[in-house]
Amino acid sequence: MNFSSHLLENAVAEFAKLPGIGKKTALRLVLHLLKTEAAQVNHFADTIQKMRQEIRFCTRCHNVADGPLCNICATPARRHDLVCVVESIRDVMAIEGTQQYNGAYHVLGGVISPLDGIGPDQLQIESLLQRVQEQQVSEIIFALNPNIQGDTTIYFIQKKLAAYPVKVTAISRGIAFGGELEYADELTLARSLQNRQPVETLVRG
Amino acid sequence: MNFSSHLLENAVAEFAKLPGIGKKTALRLVLHLLKTEAAQVNHFADTIQKMRQEIRFCTRCHNVADGPLCNICATPARRHDLVCVVESIRDVMAIEGTQQYNGAYHVLGGVISPLDGIGPDQLQIESLLQRVQEQQVSEIIFALNPNIQGDTTIYFIQKKLAAYPVKVTAISRGIAFGGELEYADELTLARSLQNRQPVETLVRG
Repeated sequence: MNFSSHLLENAVAEFAKLPGIGKKTALRLVLHLLKTEAAQVNHFADTIQKMRQEIRFCTRCHNVADGPLCNICATPARRHDLVCVVESIRDVMAIEGTQQYNGAYHVLGGVISPLDGIGPDQLQIESLLQRVQEQQVSEIIFALNPNIQGDTTIYFIQKKLAAYPVKVTAISRGIAFGGELEYADELTLARSLQNRQPVETLVRG
Repeated sequence: MNFSSHLLENAVAEFAKLPGIGKKTALRLVLHLLKTEAAQVNHFADTIQKMRQEIRFCTRCHNVADGPLCNICATPARRHDLVCVVESIRDVMAIEGTQQYNGAYHVLGGVISPLDGIGPDQLQIESLLQRVQEQQVSEIIFALNPNIQGDTTIYFIQKKLAAYPVKVTAISRGIAFGGELEYADELTLARSLQNRQPVETLVRG
């Protein structure tokens, strides 16, 4: 691309560093900001800087937080004896989006993946065991992505949890609602058959 | 979306104001910045603020510029007697991208569009006529998007230019290279037939 201004070129280059934003999209965004009022552009930049500088992570569940505890851990009305173990903040938001879960979370910050050089020590596993030990946790619910890394992580943590009197569950797997059998992969379909459920549970759900 | 942090929520809301960026994409970008080093995020924000505050518009052609003249107007090696009239900065970049044009530009800042409330007075038409009057301009080349608004704008300016001894041309229209006849609209195809060219021009091109 041929820029007639270095200021423009630099701004486009910065936007193009973001994931999924190519040069053309970056240019479109920058030209939009160029037409936006300066005060609004300053607000945009300040908000992002403030977010990066001031955001904290919940000391209990490692979710993003504005203070020492996140909004979820700080809400007394939730069931703090239920702990849903997730990979990332985004998964917390996905589950919160269902409005069907009233327990607490524990954000691992990733899953065990030797190929990517991620071992158990880089994840928030120790603090999870500590929570089980020190707080009243009645159930650990694994809600990790259904793949090899997720299953390895569940297996690893579940062995460590065997020492404590806590119920350990995982979210169910099967054919997604609205999905089509003929496009489901064989593993999912096979497991879905094995884990077949009484029809009443469907009707109730 | 359920955010457990207002700082995160505000940053996502700011990104989601950008054109073509929805809430989900905004969240992905913000979570990326959250993982990026603070110094880099500051650099991102500063670059955008600086661009918005310091960027100027070329006093001659109204292209973006770092100083009083844009890089193109400030280059003596270019043919400043050729003036290519375009709608926006993006069109300058598109033509520069071809590396086939060695003249100057004039950015109108839009096209005449009564439905959008844009009349000739809101565009840089007066300054174009002034350029023709005061500087040595031998040819005006219209490179506006081929639609009603573009054609109206060409017609309006062309009438004003009739008073000056300047050649007035427009970029050619027809079937795009790599395009298929059966998918071309009727108007384009009909015009393309009317404006048929000697085969030698194709061979030379």
